[in-house]
Parts: sequence; structure tokens; C-alpha cells
Amino acid sequence: MDIKGFSFSTVEAAIKKPGRKDLALIYSEVPANAAAVFTTSSVKAAPVLLSQKNIAGGTAQALIVNSGNANACTGEQGMNVAVETSELISAALGIDKSAVQVCSTGVIGVQLPVEKIRSAIPSLVTALSSGTFSDVAKAIMTTDTFPKEATGNGAAAGTDYMVAGVAKGAGMIMPNMATMLSFIITDAAVEPTFLNNTFRAAVNRSFNAITVDGDTSTNDTCLIMANGMAENRLITSDSSDGETFAGILDNVLLSLAKQIVKDGEGATKFVEIKLIGARNDSDAKRAAMAVANSSLVKTAFCGEDANWGRIFAAVGYSGAEVDQSRLSLCFDDVCMARNGIFAGDDAEARGTVILKKEEFTVTVDLGLGTGSATVYTSDLTHDYISINADYRS
Amino acid sequence: MDIKGFSFSTVEAAIKKPGRKDLALIYSEVPANAAAVFTTSSVKAAPVLLSQKNIAGGTAQALIVNSGNANACTGEQGMNVAVETSELISAALGIDKSAVQVCSTGVIGVQLPVEKIRSAIPSLVTALSSGTFSDVAKAIMTTDTFPKEATGNGAAAGTDYMVAGVAKGAGMIMPNMATMLSFIITDAAVEPTFLNNTFRAAVNRSFNAITVDGDTSTNDTCLIMANGMAENRLITSDSSDGETFAGILDNVLLSLAKQIVKDGEGATKFVEIKLIGARNDSDAKRAAMAVANSSLVKTAFCGEDANWGRIFAAVGYSGAEVDQSRLSLCFDDVCMARNGIFAGDDAEARGTVILKKEEFTVTVDLGLGTGSATVYTSDLTHDYISINADYRS
Repeated sequence: MDIKGFSFSTVEAAIKKPGRKDLALIYSEVPANAAAVFTTSSVKAAPVLLSQKNIAGGTAQALIVNSGNANACTGEQGMNVAVETSELISAALGIDKSAVQVCSTGVIGVQLPVEKIRSAIPSLVTALSSGTFSDVAKAIMTTDTFPKEATGNGAAAGTDYMVAGVAKGAGMIMPNMATMLSFIITDAAVEPTFLNNTFRAAVNRSFNAITVDGDTSTNDTCLIMANGMAENRLITSDSSDGETFAGILDNVLLSLAKQIVKDGEGATKFVEIKLIGARNDSDAKRAAMAVANSSLVKTAFCGEDANWGRIFAAVGYSGAEVDQSRLSLCFDDVCMARNGIFAGDDAEARGTVILKKEEFTVTVDLGLGTGSATVYTSDLTHDYISINADYRS
Repeated sequence: MDIKGFSFSTVEAAIKKPGRKDLALIYSEVPANAAAVFTTSSVKAAPVLLSQKNIAGGTAQALIVNSGNANACTGEQGMNVAVETSELISAALGIDKSAVQVCSTGVIGVQLPVEKIRSAIPSLVTALSSGTFSDVAKAIMTTDTFPKEATGNGAAAGTDYMVAGVAKGAGMIMPNMATMLSFIITDAAVEPTFLNNTFRAAVNRSFNAITVDGDTSTNDTCLIMANGMAENRLITSDSSDGETFAGILDNVLLSLAKQIVKDGEGATKFVEIKLIGARNDSDAKRAAMAVANSSLVKTAFCGEDANWGRIFAAVGYSGAEVDQSRLSLCFDDVCMARNGIFAGDDAEARGTVILKKEEFTVTVDLGLGTGSATVYTSDLTHDYISINADYRS
């Protein structure tokens, strides 16, 4: 992978357990056009509050991220740590303070020891010549069982560019731990407003369409930096270059989002919930998310139980407009229910075969209109309980 | 227990497994003032749709309920079964068709065999002389491990009256099974509008304040019948009799609701979530329910992990107005966090002791206003997964 003008480094700052890299730096030689979305929670980690302020100008040049501590629910002291971190990076790299993005993931409510960051920064900056984006993907892992990476490439007026992304953990995924993080970089030159709009749309179709446990974290952050060093013709909304770039971005983000679901705590199934026939798209998303978050639906997936009634029940309480006599439901290509009632005994046997697969699609048709949405979820298993309840026992 | 003018019967109609009573009848000698609340789901069982229509006039005289089959997602055929059931009861008891309430609980999406109901009704009516309300509590059980009953009594102008209730199962509590049901009867004479209002308020403070798995069923029904046969002075809103009656009703419903949480699938903890200091009561309820439904909070309870950060995170995404610097949290009388940050290492040890109890209270203070709400929840355990996932394996 060669994304022009970006360099990377990771070090062990002793925030996590010994022997694990826990501090990473992404640096662009030149200020990059940047956009980010952050957790919608009212309880936001200190680095989220700082990064939100810093990204307001639409540019970023460096991103520092630690794992092992979320710096959330840490008050003024936590904010001071985030600010000092950005100042140290700004001084070490000779860049503007507001060009630094700060991210954290890990335990909530414990103060992040700033002296560990302070003493690690010199070696972090020195190591910029030798690191890779894959190293960053590994350094931000917490309960993740594999690093999550995706790349894509395109061309604008004959000039090639690359898009690459890394991500970690879905939902609040570890005892006391928080955070979904994803960082996307590209050397493409992209017009700022188009970058922001197309990025937000891609996030909605990917990270905002997955759920593992329905818990929104205090630290969720997804950020893109486009430094333009591919020197392509500027990508704007009113060109086929824009469509190409949007398509590549969609693919990279969706790949990362799906990897997060597949690595969901205790997950053994990857399920696509396809909601069609809704009165509008927001109704479709509401109904799809109700199904994807239902404990009863997710335990049925775990038990390989072709339990379509639980799915109709979830659609029913979702708040979406529903006419129960028009509902239909398929597992992959097996129709389980039609016009609100069971499709027959044959369906039961055939549906059960589908549920035994590791990946399958549930299609729910509300039969009311053309609204649709697709979301991705996992099953709810004994291992989820073990990871989240038995951790300290 | 002697509630004047009510009689009860239960029979085995072979809807459930052999050897279990699965059909019950409650009958009042005279038409009773009645009120009911039903599931808010758009996917409503046939008996819910019929009973909603029948209760519109504000009176009821008989209630027939079966367990083992929810008669939900059964289309026109299911509705015909519910209607025929009400007609058979109407004919057998010589009462108006619209005075019959029909309820079902059990598997979703399977047709309810009307011939079993038809052949059981004669013996059901004959047995009315010998049954008790406790028999009804047993006959409506599905995965419940104990029958749920509560009583209260009061007096209006020196005339005694009784209030009694039965209930079954929280949420959608069994593989393929649905339904929370609760029936309240009283021989008090209660003015209809006051009965309706005070009943709805009591339901909001009890059944609408509990959660086991966050799944709303297709069959939830809570109904009250007041037949006036205690011959007390009519209870109205503008009298101390009204307050007394409302208090008794609150106690009966809250007792039943708490029994349901304690008997929640796999539950080992009973937790009261007390949300105070909210901008208003609806914000308080929203935040309390987010905490009570969070898989991460509930697994922490299961693991006896004094994990206050997860609770703040749930409050943060609840949609309630939150200023994270004002949040505080206690487990019973142990303050875990104050002004949004950890209260200190001593709290950790003391909080863990509280979490080891079978029952405890979590008090969250948003520090913004005087809004408050109390909800009740259980922990999320391995047994919940086993009951809901491993049932058919």
C-alpha cells in the first residue's frame, strides 16, 4: 500500500498490559481536508470534545490515538490530558495545535496518565519513518480478535489515488471498555464540502447500520483525512470522479463495518437484515434496527431457530408504520411468512437449514411502500455474557 | 379471599402439554366497569384486536384466556377463532358478546385449534362454582416458575372492598412464546372514568416500568373489572376514597410487576433503577429505561461488576438531556461517581459489596431538575441465553 504523504508509528506506552503497542500516530506531510463523525451520546469522552472542536475548520494533519483507556467520565483532569497531548504532538511535529486529532479507547472513568503519553511521544515521532497503517490497526485493538483494514483505489482524470481505512471494535465491547474507532486516509484531492457530505453518507450506510449489543459508546469516532498528494484533478460533487470516489469510500467503510460485526463479542453468525416495502427509508431503518437489536431475535439466531414470529414482533414495536396483514419474511430465498401468517410447514424445515449457515440474509417486506434499509447484526451468545459478565470473576 | 360476585374456573383443553390447565374463565355475576391497556405493538394478536373493540364500552362480564398459543400472526383464521370463542362464552353464560374479553398467550404464528376451545367450554362453565383466582394464576403460566398474585383491601364510607390481581411472564419470555398478561378484579363500586384513569396511571408506574429483555410482545394485556358488588359508596376522583383506592391499586400492580421481574428468564438479580434530577419526568423515564435495557449494564449486574461507567454511557445515549459534569451515581448508599467522575478507590470496593446482593438500588442523579422515574430490571445471564437460544437444540 502506498498512500502518498502519510506516515505512521506505534509504540508501547504502558497504558495497556505489557507487551502491547497502545499508542499510535498518523501524520500527513501537508494539512489534509478532513471530516469526522463522533458519538451522538451526551456523555462524550474528553478527546471527543477536543477533536470535535479541532475538526471544525475542516483540516487535520496528525492523529494520535491510545488504547487501554477511554479518557471518558474523567472531568477537567481528563480534558487537560487530551489538550496537553495535542500540544505535545503539535510541538514535536511543528504543526498547528488545531490540526491534531486526539482519540482514546479503553476503560471508562479512570484517569489517563499523561506522563506515559508525554514520555512516549519522542519515540512515537521518531518512529514515523518505519511504521505502517497495519501497525495502527493492531495498536488500536482491545477485545478485537483480528485487526480491521480495507483499501480501495481509483483514478481522477487519469491520476491514481488510494483510500485506506482501519477500525476497531463494535459498540462498547469490553468490560469497562468503550469505543468504535475508524480512521480513513486518502491521498486524493477532494473538495472539502463534497468530502464531508460523501463521508457522512458512507458512514450512515456502514457504521451507522451495524449493531452488536445496541450500546452506543462514549468515544465512537470515525474520521477521514484527504491530503491531496496524489495530485489528481480535484474531486467534486458534480463529476463522475465524485461518483467513483463515493463508491470507493462506501466499499472501504462497509468492509470495515462488516468486519466489526463479524468480530462482535461472542458472535457466531453474521446476519444482514434487509427491510423493504416501508412507507419511507427512516421507517425502514427503524424497523431493521429493532430486529437487529432484539435480544430474542439474536438468541434465536444463536440457537439456529427459524423463529420468524419474534422478528414480526420486533417490527411491530419498532415504531415504524406496519400493517400486520401485509408483512412477509424470508430467510435467504426461503419464504417463512406471507401476508402476516406462516407460509407452511415446509418453510419451517427449509428455514432451519438457512439458519445453520454462518451468514444469511433476513428480508422483511412491510408491503406498504418503497422505503428500504439494510443493517448488519450478529447473534447473542453465551460468549457475549461470559465476556461481559464473567470478566472480573 | 372473598371478592364478591366473581367466580373462576380452569380446565385442560390440550393446547399446552398434557397434564397442564391451559384454559381459564373469570366471570362476574353482574356487568363490571372495566378498563384495559393493550400492547402498543403494531403487530397485535387477534384476541387483542377483539378485546380492544369489546372493552370500548367500558364494561365486561367475562374473560376467557388460554395459554400455549398466542393466536398472533394468524390472520383472518385467527380472528375467526377469537370471535367464535367470545360467541361461545356469550351463549353459554347468557351475556352480551361484547361483554366477553378474550386473551391468549403462547407460541406466535401457529393457528389456535378452535375445536379444542369449543369442546372445553361446557366443562369450563360448569366448573365456575369450584375454581379460585389462584387457579387462574396457575393456568396462565408459560415459562413462569411461580404463579403471580397480589391482593389489597380498603373501605369506602365504612364498606369494605377487595382488589386482587394475577399476572404472568415478563416480555416475550419463551422461545416462540409471547406475552405479559395481568387481570385485576375488585368488588368495589368505582366510577368508570376514575377507574380508567387511575388504572392507567397505576399501569404506568408498574407494568410500564419493568423490563426483562426489552422486547414488547404481541399480546400484552392488562385489564381491570370492578363489579360494585361490595355495595360501597361509589368511589370517585374527588374523594379520599379515590386516593385510597388508587393507593391499593398501585400496590397490587406494583407487587405483580415486581414478581414478573424476579421471575424474569434467567434472572438472579432484582434491580431498582431510580432516576432523579432530570429536567422532567419523561426524560427521567427515558434515561432509566436506557439503563434498565442496556445489555452491558445487565451483564455487569450478572457479573457483580460495579461498572458505573456503563450506566453513565447508557444515560448518555438515552436521548434525555444530560450534562455529564453533573452526573452522580450510587449503588444503594454507596456513591460511585460524583460530578461525572469516579468517587475514589474506596467506592469501588464498597460498591462491589452492594452488587453481590440479590436486590439493590441504582440511583442516578442527572443534577438538572426535579424530574424522576423508577423502573425495575433484572440481570442478563447465561440462563437467559440458554432459555432463548438452546431451547430447540
